[in-house]
Order: sequence, then structure tokens, then C-alpha cells
Amino acid sequence: MTHIVETAESFADAALRGYCAVYERLVRPVPGGVLRSTATAEGKVAVVIGGGSGHYPAFAGYVGPGLADAAVAGDVFASPATRLVASVARKAHRGGGILLGFGNYAGDVLNFGFAAQQLRADGLDVRVLAVTDDVASAAADDTARRRGVAGDIAVFKIAGAAAEAGADLDAVERLARHANARTRSFGVAFGGCTLPGAHEPLFTVAEGRMAIGLGIHGEPGVKETAILPASELARLLVDRLVEEAPPGASGRAAVLLNGLGGTKYEELFVLWTFVSAALEKAGITAVAPLVGEYVTSLDMEGCSLSITWLDDELEPLWLAPCDSAALRVGTVPATAPAPALPPDDENRLSFPDSTPEGREAGRIMALALGRLAATLRSAEAELGRIDALAGDGDHGQGMTRGSQAAADAAAKASEAGAGAAGVLAAAADAWASRAGGTSGVIWGLGLQTASTALNDRVRPSAAQIRDAATQALEAVMRLGGARPGDKTLVDAFAPFAETLAADLEREQPIKVAWAHATERAFDAANATADLMPKLGRARIHEDRSRGHRDAGAVSFALAARTIGDTINEQ
Amino acid sequence: MTHIVETAESFADAALRGYCAVYERLVRPVPGGVLRSTATAEGKVAVVIGGGSGHYPAFAGYVGPGLADAAVAGDVFASPATRLVASVARKAHRGGGILLGFGNYAGDVLNFGFAAQQLRADGLDVRVLAVTDDVASAAADDTARRRGVAGDIAVFKIAGAAAEAGADLDAVERLARHANARTRSFGVAFGGCTLPGAHEPLFTVAEGRMAIGLGIHGEPGVKETAILPASELARLLVDRLVEEAPPGASGRAAVLLNGLGGTKYEELFVLWTFVSAALEKAGITAVAPLVGEYVTSLDMEGCSLSITWLDDELEPLWLAPCDSAALRVGTVPATAPAPALPPDDENRLSFPDSTPEGREAGRIMALALGRLAATLRSAEAELGRIDALAGDGDHGQGMTRGSQAAADAAAKASEAGAGAAGVLAAAADAWASRAGGTSGVIWGLGLQTASTALNDRVRPSAAQIRDAATQALEAVMRLGGARPGDKTLVDAFAPFAETLAADLEREQPIKVAWAHATERAFDAANATADLMPKLGRARIHEDRSRGHRDAGAVSFALAARTIGDTINEQ
Repeated sequence: MTHIVETAESFADAALRGYCAVYERLVRPVPGGVLRSTATAEGKVAVVIGGGSGHYPAFAGYVGPGLADAAVAGDVFASPATRLVASVARKAHRGGGILLGFGNYAGDVLNFGFAAQQLRADGLDVRVLAVTDDVASAAADDTARRRGVAGDIAVFKIAGAAAEAGADLDAVERLARHANARTRSFGVAFGGCTLPGAHEPLFTVAEGRMAIGLGIHGEPGVKETAILPASELARLLVDRLVEEAPPGASGRAAVLLNGLGGTKYEELFVLWTFVSAALEKAGITAVAPLVGEYVTSLDMEGCSLSITWLDDELEPLWLAPCDSAALRVGTVPATAPAPALPPDDENRLSFPDSTPEGREAGRIMALALGRLAATLRSAEAELGRIDALAGDGDHGQGMTRGSQAAADAAAKASEAGAGAAGVLAAAADAWASRAGGTSGVIWGLGLQTASTALNDRVRPSAAQIRDAATQALEAVMRLGGARPGDKTLVDAFAPFAETLAADLEREQPIKVAWAHATERAFDAANATADLMPKLGRARIHEDRSRGHRDAGAVSFALAARTIGDTINEQ
Repeated sequence: MTHIVETAESFADAALRGYCAVYERLVRPVPGGVLRSTATAEGKVAVVIGGGSGHYPAFAGYVGPGLADAAVAGDVFASPATRLVASVARKAHRGGGILLGFGNYAGDVLNFGFAAQQLRADGLDVRVLAVTDDVASAAADDTARRRGVAGDIAVFKIAGAAAEAGADLDAVERLARHANARTRSFGVAFGGCTLPGAHEPLFTVAEGRMAIGLGIHGEPGVKETAILPASELARLLVDRLVEEAPPGASGRAAVLLNGLGGTKYEELFVLWTFVSAALEKAGITAVAPLVGEYVTSLDMEGCSLSITWLDDELEPLWLAPCDSAALRVGTVPATAPAPALPPDDENRLSFPDSTPEGREAGRIMALALGRLAATLRSAEAELGRIDALAGDGDHGQGMTRGSQAAADAAAKASEAGAGAAGVLAAAADAWASRAGGTSGVIWGLGLQTASTALNDRVRPSAAQIRDAATQALEAVMRLGGARPGDKTLVDAFAPFAETLAADLEREQPIKVAWAHATERAFDAANATADLMPKLGRARIHEDRSRGHRDAGAVSFALAARTIGDTINEQ
């Protein structure tokens, strides 16, 4: 159980503040995460890691010389918002580029991926690495779908050591990918953790039973058995990992036996006596093994074993000195404190490139986004109803919250003189930060990508509009991982973008092409929508014979039509 | 729950082996505990700490340069046996004397105290410090009865730093006592831990409730309330400790916010934000505070706050560098590995002083101890029955096991040429090590103390016998903390020793004095025993009108009579 809480909402933030207060020798707080409080060489590659809170010492506990430069922290078990990832990474940047490292979860892939895109738009060189060590989460020939668990630590340690030693971004990325490719983890759970403020565990495992391969947030495991004696548990873990030893691996490996929070040190040490014997039998020498709590899930009962097969390149990096709250290796030379941070000016709006024509386009864009917010608010209940047939029913709320924040930010940017690109970028950032949930990040990502095809100087041309739609779709599919037919907004977005591009190539007027594309989006979403503004409600007609529609696809079609209506008026 | 177990019996040993394997850079295993694996200066005071297992990182996790020289580990939540304390301390000794540090629990007071006595008998300078920081366990004017909890760590850290800096034993002891006098802890529990192999927690706290001042092994607390929000919990802890600020204390303090195992890092960091604010309000500056799991009780849910009020002498010691598995402060210069340990020769029996007369006395002593084992075995069921009326009913078993081990060791020592002293010392050691439980340590302590009044050269004189009995009683009362009337063996031992001493002073023959003293012992134990060897049973007549008898007092009387019978035959 989690018992010490002030309010559930403030838990993750307060924990981070408390951590920074205790470890001020190593870290200092910034909005959304922590930075090293020690000086870092100019030109050094910044290793920025992160993910949800509730996993301490992951991730903030690994910030310090020889390890990470910064960590971004979301709410408990929730990915950090894109803008916080970008903001923390920007502050950590020392001119050498940035490696963003995180475990392979959909939310983190989106937020870190989108943040990388934003940072690149600012001219920074950013690489993204999703750790995929959990063998229980997908097959060996499908490693890209595997989750990241405690193996994170070895990968980040190796990347951090390489960056500290002065390797350039290409080399740091290559080494981190190499370490990830040679890292495998496997775990078991005896019981679930309780979220702050909750009275029941997030999940349970039956008394006397053990879930094999259960995810650290309760994701389904591969099977359940009676709890094994320590010797058999050790063999289970070692045997499963050894199966995936990389071809030609030497016998030397970084090994981490990790407790998830409720499984204690003595238990881990008992298990280690058998794990080390099993490793030895398998011809593996554990190099500077770690046994303890390195990636927890609050008070979850269980443990995992991680093996990183070392080679001549990786071993010195694994053994290199580092100094962080959770991991100290060797001796790091004393470092001067970092200079004070410049005042935060991220909310300052300035659009020096904009022209009168561009500003007029910005005004129209802001107008369209304002109408979009109104449309989605009036459709909120209907979208919620549709979402509840297949999902958790919160789609309408998230879209209302996100589109309203986007509309407000767009209006403000337009007033400050932004053109179409500036208005769209401001809207994108607000939508991703405020909507909550995956759809918010996806919309933020789509709009932000679209904004990069535009500029603040001219009214968007047909070619720019085509590029904006096409590139946004590409980014949403790449980072969101969805294909047409997966019952996501891509089902409507893909035919929309394709139709729009085709019509514009054939030099159809923008209004005509947009209307045609919108028709295709509604058709693909398997719905038609009649806005009835007088009733303050959207009623969405559905063709039940064609099965459930995806609420995301429907709201995409609604959005396309609202924007089209605004274009038509001009 | 504790889930990772091979066998419950091997848990503590296996955990210690696993720990030593992981941290071989810092420690090496020896029977009963761990020693530093790094070289230590000749003449340095050895700081040897310890207690039951199940509290990792206490105590083995605090062995390393700048901290402890060695740690002794008992079974889970059980004090280490006297002979193991003595053996580990002897190996840690570098010629500068030894400080034995442990939490103030009856078993540890006995075993460390008795070990100190054995080591002193070998000519070593040994000081004993029982930490007494838990304000919930006794009143402020009765600190000697307070338990030791997480405040142990500050006291040991300060003692370790002083020893490392070259302070002599007087100074190390003084500083450790000074730190202990200025250290206070207070804790709360939300739930109990599960012993390895058990299926139910050792104790429970009702859902949504919090036990204030509960001991880390489930000892009763001061009260129970609903779980408080973090801010109020912080005030509760800080206010109670600040009440006991030493007069004239500066505002600077070493502060430790400790998790007991099931209360996790994020919760502790959340609590710290409020604790540090409350401390500040109370005018206390936390110097290098520690927030985390420093003294656990397996997976017990709860936390404690410890404050050590610093002064100019203590603060530099608190901040001095140290390097251990659980606590690293600053940078400790690299140290060479410790030289290999000499082969263990503790089981070698050699009695160079003995004479034919002494060896004859040794033979009689061994004979008496053999008969004592037979008597106690035949009385085992009766003693168990009596013990069950007031205690847990295991007294008979413990006495049988201990006396048989003593008889075997005595026979072996006698064969190897020991006199009365050597035979008795061997018996004492075996009894304390093998009996288990408090009565075993008490008998070991009594016999060992008695042995120091004798020698291997002559048949014991009346004066020696008087001194042996008187000094043994004094040691048992001092370390065991029992007074006549407390329903312990002292109820019979005290009148026995007094009568024996008085009669021998009046120059009564030994046989007569012993018989008289035995009679008084039976009378005080409120019983007479008729041994019926043919039935293989002792039947103990009781005078029910005088209330329950104490099984320990009865077995003492039986022992006195058996030894007397052997003396009479000679």
C-alpha cells in the first residue's frame, strides 16, 4: 500500500521536490524534472532520460556525473507531457546534441518522440532511444514491440559513460542502441502496487501464486504458477534470458537483479546466491552486478533479472565511474556547481518573421481552431458515447479540453502577431500539454508537424497545405504506431490526406479538395454528422451495419469539416 | 510478504552470503557476519555492530572504510549467538580495542555483553554500547530502557568516523555515547512484515489505521489513529522529537527519515517536503539529511524519523567520508585489499596450564555436566509443562539441547586435558551457541563467568566455588537485567549463591554448603523434584498454593542438585 500522501494529484511533484531537496549535491529541480546541479562541459552530449513517476530511483535517481544529465518525470505511471520533455531537454543541452532515453511504452514513445521533433525544429540534434528489454512482452523476432523495464539502467549507464567520456552524439546513440540490443530482462510478480490515494492495489496476484512476465504497471504476463523456491526461481529467470544470448556473446555480462519495491534486499540477496550459480553454470561472468531496488513500481512485490551481454566496447562503459543518488561507481572527480539557470522565457511570444499577409492567415487559423473547440464541445457527449462502446469513454472530454486549450493559445499567438505556422505551433503545444491521454499528444503532434510545413509570412499555398497534411499523417503514424484499420483517427486521416494531396496535385481549388477530402474522412469514419448549433449538440448519424466507429476517426472528420467551413467563408 | 525463500532456516545466512558476493569490494564473509575486505590500519579501534537479520542495510550494509569494521548477523529478528559476536569481533580487532554497537534489545544486550566479557577474558579492551533512540519505548527519564531503532545509523556513523580518524577507544566510546545521548527516533507503522517461510504477517495494523511508536518487530506502540495526511504525519514526528531536544542544543542536526521496507522512496520524499518545513519552523537545520531505507524490517510498512543534535565535535564526524554498501559520503581514498584471514583455529583445544590434579577436577566437572544433561532430558516434558503456564513452553527443549551440547563439549575438553576452568568454559560456549533462546545465553554466561573464578591447575577451593557462584549470579543479573521476584532463574540462583557463600564463609564443608544452598533453591523455586530414573521421567512436586513457579528457577534447582550429587560421590 501507498500510505504517505498529501493529495494524490500532488504526489509525483512533491516526491520530486523532496528528492531534489535531499540530493541537492547532485540535482536541481526544473519544471517537469531534474537537471544535474553540477557543472557539465560545453559540447558534451546530453543524456536525458525519463518516464512516469512511481519508479524511483528511476529516473531522477540516475542523474549525475557519468550518468544522465537530466530526467523528466510524468505523473505516477504516466508519461511526461511533450512540452516538459522538450523543456527539460533544452535546459540540459550543452551544444553536443541530445539523446532521449526511455522505456518503450506508447505514451513515452509519443511524448519523447514529439519532443524530439520540436527540438529538431529548433535546430537541435536529437536522437531517441526506446529501451526494449522485457522478453515477456513480445517475441524475440519482434523486439521493437517489447517494453522497457529495469534493463533501462544498463543502457542509460552505458550511454551516460560514453557521453561523459566525450563521445559525440552519433557514437553515444550507437552505443546506447548496441547496449539495448544486448540487454534482456525477465521478471515475476507476487502482488501489485497501490497508486497514491487509492485503497486497492492496481492489480493482484493470488495468494501463493506468482505471475511470470507481468508488466510493472500490471500489463498481462505470460503465465501464472505457484511461488517457486528461490533456487527454481533463479533457474527460471536465468534460463529464459540465456535463450536470447546474442550470437558470439562473450561470457561477460552486466547483471541487475532488481526488486520492484515490496520484495526486499534480503530476498534479493538470497535469490542472488542461486542466480549467480545459475549464471556461472551458463558460462556467464557477472561483471559488477547490481542487486537491489533500481527500478521500482511503488510497493509492487516482485523482481526482475536483467542481463547486458558486454563486449570490449561496452564493458569499460559499464565500469566507468558515475555518481548519482541511486548508483555510484568508482570515484568521480569533484565538480563545480552548475551556473544558475537563465530565467524561463518559454512563454514569451515573438514572431519576428511575420508579415501582414501571414498575420491574416494566422487570424483565420485561430478562428478555425476556435470553431473547432466549439464543435468538439458540442459533440463531447456523442464522442464519449461512441468511445465507450470500445474504449474508456473519455475521448470526448480529452478532445474538448485539448481543443479549447489549443484555441486559447492560438488566439493569443495571433494577437501577438503570429502567422499560420506560429498559431498552429502554439495550438499544438497547448493541445498536447492540456488534453491528457494519447489523443492529446497525437493531435499536438499532428498540428505541430503541420505547422512546420507552413510559415508566418504567407497565406498557405496548395503545396504547403498538401505537405502539412501528408507530413502530419506520417508523423502520427510513425510515433503513434497506428495503421489504417487499427480503429484510430488514422482511419479517417489517411483517406483525408490522400484525397487532399491527389486533388491538389490535379490543381483543384483548395476549398473543393478540402471538401472532397472531408467527405472521404466521414465515409471512412463510417458516420455523417449534422451540427445542430441551436440545440448545442452534435448528432452523429451512424451506419450500424458497418460495425463500431472509432471516436478518434469521427472527431477527426468533424474537425476537418469545421476547418473547411472556415476556409469556405474566406 | 516475504516470497523469495529457499528454506526459512537458511534465509539469513543465504542473504548474507549473497550480500557479500555482490559487495566483495567492501566486505568478506566470516562465520556469523562480515568483515571489511579492505585493509585497516594496525592499532585502529574496531567498530563492530550487529543484531538480528531482516533489517538490511542494517547492519552488514554499513561495513566499510569510515564506518564499521565488521557486522555480526543473527537469524531473522534474532540476536547473534555470543560465540559469533566474539569470533567476528576477534577477527576485526587491530590492536586498538573494540567498540560493540547494537540496538538495545534484551537478546543483543546479553549476547554482545557476554561476548565482551569473553573477549576481555582474552585480554582485549572492549566497550559495549546499546543504542537507545526510540522515544516510544520508554519515558524520557528512563532512556536506558529505550529500544534502538534507525538512530543506530547516526551513532555508528559517528563512532566509525572517529575510529577511522585515529581516535583511541576511550574517545570512540565517549563520542558514540555522546551521539546516542543526543539521538532520538519516533516512528509509525501501517502494517507488519512477514517472516521468511510464514504465510501471515508477524502483526497487522487495521486498514486505514496507523500505529504510533510501534516497534520494528511488532512491539506494542503508544497509540493508534487514522492514517494522517503527509503534512500532519510530519508534524507528529517532528513535534515529538523536538520535545526532547537536549538543553542548549544548536539548531544543527543529522536527520534520517527512514522507510521500514514497504513504505517507498516517493512516499518518503513526499513526507520529507513536510518534515523539512517542520524542522525549519522548529529552528533545526538538517545537515546532510538521509531519506530512504536505512534500517528496514523486511517489508514492514511504516517509517521513522531520527534526529541527532550535532555539536562542534559531532558534526565533522557525521560529515566525514565513508564508503559502504548503504551509505557513501564524500570520497574515501582507495584502499588495498585486506590480507587473507589466518585459518580458523577456534576449535583447537589446548590447555597448556593443566596439572594432574586440575585434570581430575575437570573430569569430575565433565561428569557432573553429563549427569545434568541426563537430568534435564528426563525433566524436559515437565519443564515444558510448567513453562507453558506462563511462557511459550519451550524451556524444556532449550535446556535439553543446551545442556547436552555443554556435556559433549565438556567431555571433549576433559579428554583434551582441560581442568575445571577449561571444561566449564567449553561447556558454557556450547550451551550458549546451541540452546537457542535467552535461557541458553544466560546459562552460557553463568557458566563462563564461573569458569573465570577457577583454573586448570587445582581442584576448586571453597573460596573459588564461592566466587564462581557469586560472580556468575552477578553477571546473569547485570546482563540479563533480572532481579529476584521477576520469575526467572535468578529467583532460585540468588538464594543459592547467597546461602553457599554464607555457609562457605562459616567454613562449612563444600558438600554441606552445596546441599543447603540447593535446598534453598528448591524452596525459592517453590518445588521439590523427585527424579525417577527408572521411569525416565522427573516428576516435580509443586505447591500450588504459592502460585506458578518459573521453569527457569526449577531447572536451576534441578541442576544444583545434580551437580551436588556428583560432588557427594567424590
